[in-house]
Amino acid sequence: MLKLYYSPGSCALASHIALEEAAADYEPVRVNFAEGEQRTPAYLKINPKGRVPALVTDRGILTENPAILLYVAQTFPNAGLAPLDDPFALARMQSCNSYLCATVHVAHAHKMRGSRWADRPESLEDMKAKVPETMAACFELIETEMLAGPWVMGDDYSVADGYLFTLARWLQGDGVDLARFPKVAEHMAQMAARPAVAKVLELHS
Amino acid sequence: MLKLYYSPGSCALASHIALEEAAADYEPVRVNFAEGEQRTPAYLKINPKGRVPALVTDRGILTENPAILLYVAQTFPNAGLAPLDDPFALARMQSCNSYLCATVHVAHAHKMRGSRWADRPESLEDMKAKVPETMAACFELIETEMLAGPWVMGDDYSVADGYLFTLARWLQGDGVDLARFPKVAEHMAQMAARPAVAKVLELHS
Repeated sequence: MLKLYYSPGSCALASHIALEEAAADYEPVRVNFAEGEQRTPAYLKINPKGRVPALVTDRGILTENPAILLYVAQTFPNAGLAPLDDPFALARMQSCNSYLCATVHVAHAHKMRGSRWADRPESLEDMKAKVPETMAACFELIETEMLAGPWVMGDDYSVADGYLFTLARWLQGDGVDLARFPKVAEHMAQMAARPAVAKVLELHS
Repeated sequence: MLKLYYSPGSCALASHIALEEAAADYEPVRVNFAEGEQRTPAYLKINPKGRVPALVTDRGILTENPAILLYVAQTFPNAGLAPLDDPFALARMQSCNSYLCATVHVAHAHKMRGSRWADRPESLEDMKAKVPETMAACFELIETEMLAGPWVMGDDYSVADGYLFTLARWLQGDGVDLARFPKVAEHMAQMAARPAVAKVLELHS
């Protein structure tokens, strides 16, 4: 059986939603970040990066949301979670997921995880202060260029929607007014109304 | 015909190598970063992110290396550039590409592009000073966990190899001694010996 290691409120929510939307048989395993469980030898054996999500499969362990999302979509094709028969559309979806992973999540991480990239307390404060600006710039691009509507890929829901939803939930805490992005706001409301999403959010609360 | 927008020495090299390995019919278009061409209205129409790579296809434009690499592998299946028939192996490959994109490239970017995440000159200097440490940590993980050898995925060459090669070329400039990572060093030598890679490197010199 699949096993998903997650931490509440983390980006693992994206993979978690995908598994639930796929009606996969999986066990969610909560990693206690507050107690630093992600840095214990036991967890580092599962994911040497000390991060979540990590998906344990019968073939081995997968990390990184864009990879897990593609895997779930491909191994549960009947769930229709990605345009698997259209290489261009699939690449568009992966492009969106890659942007969320490498630009949006990274922008957000400079609020609380600045010590990954600098050491002085003043630098970390400086990074933190810029997060509202960088996150707003990211969502400006998402609003105008990336979110076709109603779903990321247009008419068809995909794993990219769960990922966008996951990161959009961070906007308020990052000091960005969601009202600036009406398409994203509408997308969030539609996502929250999906039964699979509601079920997963309970585990993340 | 496909058209690849690239800047010499940038991460677009990864997509460039993939197109050449696929023996694709494509036109490479050089973007002059020194003159800020990536921020001109003409280029922002091609890629609103103001970055490279951007791949123009007859269906539209793709950005983000992990997406372009998957697209090239899927649209030139005979080139054997990805384990297309094995969802787990493909996800492993995408996991590697995602790590290179969202962690390794991001670590490197804090040397010259720190102003993306902070404003004060002292913060940018602080970020810059930490790059040798963060890049070394990334390649420690790649050396021990990610590079199966001789290629990233083991016996079979894939688009992930061109991506790893692209970022490993930055190590020296980032103050990291390649000799610390013998598997990565051997991988670089093998990559440089590939005719497609040698051809592309000429355009990036």
